[in-house]
Amino acid sequence: MIYADNAATTRLDIDALHAMLPWLQEEFGNPSQPYSFAQAPRKVISDSRELIASCIGANADEIYFTSGGTESDNWAILGTLDNAKAHIITSKIEHHAILNTCKYLEDCGANITYLDVDSTGIVLPKMLLNQISHKTNLVSIMFANNEIGTIEPISELASIAHENHSIFHTDAVQAVGHVPINVNSLNVDLLSASAHKFNGPKGIGFLYIRRGIKIKPIVHGGKQERRMRAGTENVAAIVGMATALKKNCDNLFAISQNLRTIKDIFLNTLERNKVDFICNGDPLGIPGNTSISVRGISGETLLHRLDLKKIAISTGSACDSGSTQISHVIKAIGVPNEYAEGTVRISFGSNNTIDDAIKIAEAIVDVLRKRN
Amino acid sequence: MIYADNAATTRLDIDALHAMLPWLQEEFGNPSQPYSFAQAPRKVISDSRELIASCIGANADEIYFTSGGTESDNWAILGTLDNAKAHIITSKIEHHAILNTCKYLEDCGANITYLDVDSTGIVLPKMLLNQISHKTNLVSIMFANNEIGTIEPISELASIAHENHSIFHTDAVQAVGHVPINVNSLNVDLLSASAHKFNGPKGIGFLYIRRGIKIKPIVHGGKQERRMRAGTENVAAIVGMATALKKNCDNLFAISQNLRTIKDIFLNTLERNKVDFICNGDPLGIPGNTSISVRGISGETLLHRLDLKKIAISTGSACDSGSTQISHVIKAIGVPNEYAEGTVRISFGSNNTIDDAIKIAEAIVDVLRKRN
Repeated sequence: MIYADNAATTRLDIDALHAMLPWLQEEFGNPSQPYSFAQAPRKVISDSRELIASCIGANADEIYFTSGGTESDNWAILGTLDNAKAHIITSKIEHHAILNTCKYLEDCGANITYLDVDSTGIVLPKMLLNQISHKTNLVSIMFANNEIGTIEPISELASIAHENHSIFHTDAVQAVGHVPINVNSLNVDLLSASAHKFNGPKGIGFLYIRRGIKIKPIVHGGKQERRMRAGTENVAAIVGMATALKKNCDNLFAISQNLRTIKDIFLNTLERNKVDFICNGDPLGIPGNTSISVRGISGETLLHRLDLKKIAISTGSACDSGSTQISHVIKAIGVPNEYAEGTVRISFGSNNTIDDAIKIAEAIVDVLRKRN
Repeated sequence: MIYADNAATTRLDIDALHAMLPWLQEEFGNPSQPYSFAQAPRKVISDSRELIASCIGANADEIYFTSGGTESDNWAILGTLDNAKAHIITSKIEHHAILNTCKYLEDCGANITYLDVDSTGIVLPKMLLNQISHKTNLVSIMFANNEIGTIEPISELASIAHENHSIFHTDAVQAVGHVPINVNSLNVDLLSASAHKFNGPKGIGFLYIRRGIKIKPIVHGGKQERRMRAGTENVAAIVGMATALKKNCDNLFAISQNLRTIKDIFLNTLERNKVDFICNGDPLGIPGNTSISVRGISGETLLHRLDLKKIAISTGSACDSGSTQISHVIKAIGVPNEYAEGTVRISFGSNNTIDDAIKIAEAIVDVLRKRN
């Protein structure tokens, strides 16, 4: 099988798995307990927190573990809300973890502004400038889009938010472990990440919370995570996340270069075979992410025909599956109708080779030829 | 080391670990995707849901996976609240996942009644009858207390709630996998469970939601868990939870008998050595749970002296660690002051033997002798 849906989830890194195993076996102590048997899990959580912080230029005490990217996004939005009449600015192409949390707040009486994007999916700073005011509590713009890979001008957007005394959050679920990230040069206050998007385990993520930012817990109970996120720590998953992130970050340049080459070869193979398609998103986006809209076929058909050839790709977001409509992202960037229905996402990862790229492109060509 | 803090967390069952491994390795697909590679994780989630449902007499579609007991408790309380002026009845001896969620709602304007318990920690049905009215939205009473092991008269309490058109939730984190549970004979609407309390992995739990009960999601985003709990499913942990629960439930009678024997021998050894102590809670409580209050020593000292002898026990709830005060549970059952400070919890599990019980009791005797 060729797996090219790494934006949906990734294979757990083998070193991350090995790092997890002791914490799934003999070292099972509850880190909150005061006896010796709890020292090792407590220390490994602390070490993992430092390792993760070092990967994004944060302080260790700014990293809070959650059950994943969705919880991190929910926390950032719900936790910073100080009254039901809040004003939040986000974009039209956010992940549903942001959009549906905003929708929930809208139903509660909050005022949400959804910014348009340009044809490559970029949130232009001037669009934010037009909408922001001193009454805006929070601006939440994703670091990189999960469907088209476009990277947003985060530091500029964050500066505008700060000039208006607003908190700035970025959903960096598709970016952490894939592109260099420094929370200080980005100037963000809150940043969400999910381990299974960078070869860590499922069910774990983190929220970076800059020192001094006012945010309330959304999960109430015990005193874990410095009283900010209750619940017994998922020790093994935390260790797996830290190991995977560190490994990805150490090899970021080499992995990116390789993914850009793979993507180029994929697109060149389609072009050489005269496939009528549009490549969506900004070319400087997340290296492995490739969204194409092909004329004359539906994305769903393409996905299923490739599945029969043992190739796994996606039509859009995994969290939005079951839907055969044109996604909110493809609509927002204005892909022409005759192409939009034929949208698929091929997201290459460190598991993929140039040979995979050629095989996937040739499979698409073959499917299209058999239909004509 | 002798580990006797199984109410804080348990060792992951070896069969559960083996069941998890394929889902941490080659079968890493995102269950929400429509291609073949997602079929196996989707099926194993479905199978796990059925297995778990069968262990508690539920229908599979009444089981919703969460990140653990704390999230399940938060969801039950926050999700059933239909207005800020709700009336909720709970008890004074609940876990902090319930108490602090109620406190949060109290700060938001809700009306919370905290029921007293008798000297064994039982919530008497007449106490609930005195407080409940047609304005009560939710009654939440734990199945078994995490410090003293007392099992509450859940079916009677649930009937009173239902007679008053109130929803009934039980935090069964200490009970699931330890005593027989049937949600229908119990007549509960919502039930929380946490895998790492019954030899499953950390970071996973479930909420049982009876068909027809009105509850809103508290984690917003993708369409997972039939649109009720967003976020990519923690496949491996779900499988581990189901495997551990099934194994525990299949051996419930034998394990319970063994634990009651171990507990009896432990208490007899203390008595034979003339230790001046009270055994807290109802004798018919959770089999392995043993809370004792010893005169003339602090629980903290006892814990640390036993730690030096390589014995891990607890003073109270793991989630409340760091606190050297007398716990809210010990206060609520009215343990006399001269004993209350010397409270420790020894929670035996399937890992423990009669020999462990004797060694722990003798270690306590030794610590007390050296102080006199």
